[in-house]
Amino acid sequence: VEIAIIDEKFLPLEELDKVYMDRGTFFGDGVYEVVRSYNGKIFALAEHIQRFENGLNAIGIENVDIEKIKQKVISAFEKSKIPNAKIYFHLTRGSGPREHNFTGDYKPNFFLTVTELPDCTSLKKNGVSVITHPDWRWKRCDIKSLNLLPNVLAKQAASEKNAFEAILVNEDGYITEGASSAFFSIFDEKVYTTPLQENILPSITRKFVTKACRNLTLEVIEKHLSPDEVKKADELFMAVTTKDILPIIEFNNVEISNRLPGEITSKIENEFAEFTG
Amino acid sequence: VEIAIIDEKFLPLEELDKVYMDRGTFFGDGVYEVVRSYNGKIFALAEHIQRFENGLNAIGIENVDIEKIKQKVISAFEKSKIPNAKIYFHLTRGSGPREHNFTGDYKPNFFLTVTELPDCTSLKKNGVSVITHPDWRWKRCDIKSLNLLPNVLAKQAASEKNAFEAILVNEDGYITEGASSAFFSIFDEKVYTTPLQENILPSITRKFVTKACRNLTLEVIEKHLSPDEVKKADELFMAVTTKDILPIIEFNNVEISNRLPGEITSKIENEFAEFTG
Repeated sequence: VEIAIIDEKFLPLEELDKVYMDRGTFFGDGVYEVVRSYNGKIFALAEHIQRFENGLNAIGIENVDIEKIKQKVISAFEKSKIPNAKIYFHLTRGSGPREHNFTGDYKPNFFLTVTELPDCTSLKKNGVSVITHPDWRWKRCDIKSLNLLPNVLAKQAASEKNAFEAILVNEDGYITEGASSAFFSIFDEKVYTTPLQENILPSITRKFVTKACRNLTLEVIEKHLSPDEVKKADELFMAVTTKDILPIIEFNNVEISNRLPGEITSKIENEFAEFTG
Repeated sequence: VEIAIIDEKFLPLEELDKVYMDRGTFFGDGVYEVVRSYNGKIFALAEHIQRFENGLNAIGIENVDIEKIKQKVISAFEKSKIPNAKIYFHLTRGSGPREHNFTGDYKPNFFLTVTELPDCTSLKKNGVSVITHPDWRWKRCDIKSLNLLPNVLAKQAASEKNAFEAILVNEDGYITEGASSAFFSIFDEKVYTTPLQENILPSITRKFVTKACRNLTLEVIEKHLSPDEVKKADELFMAVTTKDILPIIEFNNVEISNRLPGEITSKIENEFAEFTG
């Protein structure tokens, strides 16, 4: 008789809830998004939904009613009555016997949580420190998939060095992006970030940072930079949905902008706030 | 109030079963093994358990009672009474709020299934065809982690071309291994396979193939080979726990050994059977 064990419990395989046979767990075969609200209003939902749909298409999860997912996001957010909420959701290809290929007939599994966003006022005010870490991720980081173990290990390495974020460095010695953020450098009042390509997530916060820079007539330049170049920057910052812009005041133990959030960074942050206000 | 959605169902976050907050699903933050039995006897369990422990150490999952896991494997197998069984098990870092770093106090989640192994007699008799696919995996494929989306996509690409396996090719143009198998070529009665390194799984079946070759006084050479070299091989085969050795009779639509399982491959297979009989 086919058997399963969940922790200490033995049971017949046929009695397993489908969640235990989720391809999300077996393979990370799914995509996810993190959306946030500012004061009762969801920010950039259309953009997140579009990226989510692109991810589903990229890994061949078909027949998903995207509009229905969007409505679930809105509905859960409204029910929560949390003004500054973090909305996480993922969709996996479905549950079934563990076989790599997916020629079978799968019904996707959807999961969502709405939680309170932790306050990040002091992080914004004081800035954060970062370290670099080898970019061990797969070659399709443009897909926001559930394969995040390299990100986890990099973030943990940062934590263990009392740093807030790990900035990933590829085999060519260039920075790609943060383990869970986009990364920006400022030299001579120009803003630099990595060119968007297959190993970079098309960050939505990055997109709005670029828009903010444009409004401020700050030039944004896509360029590959090494850690050695970056540590000489006038200012550094990172961008992530849950905290938008965070100034970086230390990079691999090198002080940046005298350990204070940079002036241009603050301007960009203020301009960004116009979009979310 | 913090809220979750499972498929169509809304519920308070606090009522979620911990399986929904598993880091295995959020990040693929866990390792797995697949073990098999031959005629009522588990094969190479000690080796699989050792690799499993190495994987846990590599990703920093601590305080796991490995002996207890081994006993669970044996106990589930015995309860199942399936002579030719496939035993899958994984352990994830645990459940909790979705944060990349794992400085919190996690209790690992264990999961196991024992299922009947599908018969592969005709695959062994007739051989299989393979295609090549870019190796999109992360840089630590020596760790048997739950981050398997690149393997899934490669296997699916193979399926869609009516091939049984995808042989992965790295950016330097060399074969690494199959999406879920080790890969071997035979030239002039010598057996070639990829050097073991950080981007290769230390395959246990590979280890026993090497042992079988040694018994047959066949030289095994670790060497990087390109698809162009390999398609001129006298014989090709793949090795995977659930099927041990499978002859390859077609490589990227090129016939190998006249579309018949190779003679040396068959000898190795027979020798391998001595270990499992």
